[in-house]
Amino acid sequence: MSKTFFNIGLVIGISLILNCSYAQTDAEVLRNIYTQSLTNGKSYTWLDHLSNQIGGRLSGSLNAERAVKYTKAELEALGFDKVWLQPVMVPKWIRGAKEFAYFETAPGKTTSVNICALGGSVATNAAGIKSQLVEVKSFEELEELGREKIDGKIVFYNRPMQPDLISTFEAYGGCVNQRYSGAKEAAKYGAIGVIVRSMNLRDDDYPHTGAMSYGDLPVSERIPSAAISTNDANLLSSMLSLQPNIQFYFKQNCRQLKDVESHNVIAEITGSEFPKEIIIVGGHLDSWDLGDGSHDDGAGVVQSMEVLRLFKEMGIRPKRTIRVVLFMNEENGLRGGRKYAEVAKQKGERHIFALESDAGGFTPRGFSFDASESHFNQVLSWKPLFKPYLIHYFERGGSGADIGPLKADNMVLAGLRPDSQRYFDHHHASNDTFEHVNKRELELGAATMTSLVYLFDKYGLNPIEKIPEPKK
Amino acid sequence: MSKTFFNIGLVIGISLILNCSYAQTDAEVLRNIYTQSLTNGKSYTWLDHLSNQIGGRLSGSLNAERAVKYTKAELEALGFDKVWLQPVMVPKWIRGAKEFAYFETAPGKTTSVNICALGGSVATNAAGIKSQLVEVKSFEELEELGREKIDGKIVFYNRPMQPDLISTFEAYGGCVNQRYSGAKEAAKYGAIGVIVRSMNLRDDDYPHTGAMSYGDLPVSERIPSAAISTNDANLLSSMLSLQPNIQFYFKQNCRQLKDVESHNVIAEITGSEFPKEIIIVGGHLDSWDLGDGSHDDGAGVVQSMEVLRLFKEMGIRPKRTIRVVLFMNEENGLRGGRKYAEVAKQKGERHIFALESDAGGFTPRGFSFDASESHFNQVLSWKPLFKPYLIHYFERGGSGADIGPLKADNMVLAGLRPDSQRYFDHHHASNDTFEHVNKRELELGAATMTSLVYLFDKYGLNPIEKIPEPKK
Repeated sequence: MSKTFFNIGLVIGISLILNCSYAQTDAEVLRNIYTQSLTNGKSYTWLDHLSNQIGGRLSGSLNAERAVKYTKAELEALGFDKVWLQPVMVPKWIRGAKEFAYFETAPGKTTSVNICALGGSVATNAAGIKSQLVEVKSFEELEELGREKIDGKIVFYNRPMQPDLISTFEAYGGCVNQRYSGAKEAAKYGAIGVIVRSMNLRDDDYPHTGAMSYGDLPVSERIPSAAISTNDANLLSSMLSLQPNIQFYFKQNCRQLKDVESHNVIAEITGSEFPKEIIIVGGHLDSWDLGDGSHDDGAGVVQSMEVLRLFKEMGIRPKRTIRVVLFMNEENGLRGGRKYAEVAKQKGERHIFALESDAGGFTPRGFSFDASESHFNQVLSWKPLFKPYLIHYFERGGSGADIGPLKADNMVLAGLRPDSQRYFDHHHASNDTFEHVNKRELELGAATMTSLVYLFDKYGLNPIEKIPEPKK
Repeated sequence: MSKTFFNIGLVIGISLILNCSYAQTDAEVLRNIYTQSLTNGKSYTWLDHLSNQIGGRLSGSLNAERAVKYTKAELEALGFDKVWLQPVMVPKWIRGAKEFAYFETAPGKTTSVNICALGGSVATNAAGIKSQLVEVKSFEELEELGREKIDGKIVFYNRPMQPDLISTFEAYGGCVNQRYSGAKEAAKYGAIGVIVRSMNLRDDDYPHTGAMSYGDLPVSERIPSAAISTNDANLLSSMLSLQPNIQFYFKQNCRQLKDVESHNVIAEITGSEFPKEIIIVGGHLDSWDLGDGSHDDGAGVVQSMEVLRLFKEMGIRPKRTIRVVLFMNEENGLRGGRKYAEVAKQKGERHIFALESDAGGFTPRGFSFDASESHFNQVLSWKPLFKPYLIHYFERGGSGADIGPLKADNMVLAGLRPDSQRYFDHHHASNDTFEHVNKRELELGAATMTSLVYLFDKYGLNPIEKIPEPKK
């Protein structure tokens, strides 16, 4: 036997051995992924650290930088092919001293209520502001009242989330314009401040912050805006129906500082066959400042890290390049998501699939896909593989804010869709904390994401089929 | 126009009007059911009372009787056709003073651990018992060790729930024989007591009680058995691996008293067309004593009451007789379920469908059906109606303990299947409390049950098809 033949034989032999270790069916691989995540997963330990050792991670804060360092170090310890930081300038808004508010039914008769400044809002003046309230449910109502009724007053937006919608995200979508644009709209009619009912389906005492924008309103016309807890919104509304002229007082101390540099954290396993076809999985590393950001989006961060770890742990060498991207500044700027897409475009990188987890660490139900019909049908062919794990939701729709800027024709974007019922009980509030995340639910989410990434890596994207003309 | 023709015309007219109000598609009726439950539901208010005003409701206790009175009064206030109490004798086991336990690594060096007596266990003697521990994972291991190694010692059953199973009920099923029969088995080899790892997938400090049985073991040979929290089971196991001869002490003060009379609580809307075809929906009114029984099974009780209330509220006059049955004594005797079936048999009642909710008040995922293939196929034809509510789980399997005794050929039994991931964090422990039930999740469950009952009422049971012989 010549040496060449021997070498070829050796290569074939080794290939056979290697192939044997990969000769599992997809169903078997998925079963192993779930078992690994549920029995030896790291996601919960990472979340414990992010939530309890670091805490709330608002863009530009010291904690956000700690989270960058921590996750980079953890990813480096796992021995991936590359780990790097991608610089990005982010806004820095600080809350300052805790807000204070009350309503007054008669001089000296005050009842304090729970508020928090909305992210991006200006402060009140140092003495706070006090005025009558005008309760409205919509911008149309605001317009009807007009400057005559609104000038010099505080507008109280009190349209609740619609409880009969099954998807709480849909209910959120129906209300959030009050929070995001309420101040800008009310300022048009001379309002001096804005109070917004918290985006929460539950009646409780937590005010929920979140991003707001003044649009192109000149700095001099910007008015302070704050969220009020649902219990206090209900109370205020009842009081107003009894006594429309009650006075409302609030004081907040927030400030917008200069942009600062921060980073997206990225790690990669380079593809063995098609390294230029890139798959990313991610969540956002920043969070609001009131809680510790466990559901929003600590969960998505650690689940995304777990996807890459499981590939490594299980010895699955991906054909395509798989990256975890921990985005900075989803909450109040989306600068990280935009930067990642910008750099990818500059480098001419080809992304075939992007998956985001940013809907809480609850029991996973499936995915929402921003994809062509042809690619969506490809994904649907995998749906039966997920049935043993009670993953049933495969629908076309949105994906995730951070991966949105990557959108291109010949790729698939997807968002993990966990059970949404409890999400807005915690979202952007001081009770978004570690003890409200269940270990198994978090791990099931990580396994579900890993499974989908595994299938996209193994099969790649089908070429887009031309739909034949219907025959006449 | 003759008076007769006028009258006929009037009847037709009224019928048309009445029919108009019923001329909704099934999809529309289901949508209304969910909207009603989510916007004007009563289930959460009832649960608040059961949990926070009454509390734990162990069979034979004063609280169990309070729960009977309260639910009967609430059902009466709703104006159903009939409300009654069905007498049933139930066991009365009482915990007595709180249990106490520690392990001792050297004389006087003790570490206390969290235990609770298992339901039905005997007490220790007044001084408590103290001995070496023998840790086992199975009855087979116990048998291998035999009397020589076990005599005079305390057996410590420490087989954990299997974390890689997706259904936590399946994981429970794989462990619960340690709790139910552990004492009986260990007593055979001369053990003087039994400590069982709590049936909980989470590592925490709560001991979880639950039913145990001595089978036909003579009274003189019965040994005390208690559950230990998962954290303490882990600690104990580590300590034993370092120092196998550590001493374990425990004292418990429970007692089995004479049976007492209690009641199933039943309410009925009598069918308008087929009153002799009976549909029941229920949960169990008793609970363990440690928590307030919110998930197990306060949730099932109030959801079942809500089914009947929604029929009434929405003006749906059922064709068949629909009953809510709140069973007494599921936890430690099943006397209520047996009594209901016994009386139904005596009266020659024909039940076509029975639905139980006894798996917690979490987000509903679907149902498990104990049904013929033909009837299961009938149910499957309704599955698309549930898709908007993310109800996807329709599988053949078990139903519920209380309705089990009703089982007959020509009927369908079903169990509501909520998300199971968190259930055993709370099951039978002091943290099965109201704040762990989410209002929306509870209401979604009630709506899901109501929808299925509505469909069974409207369409009845298909005649069982004879499956044709396969052609050769």
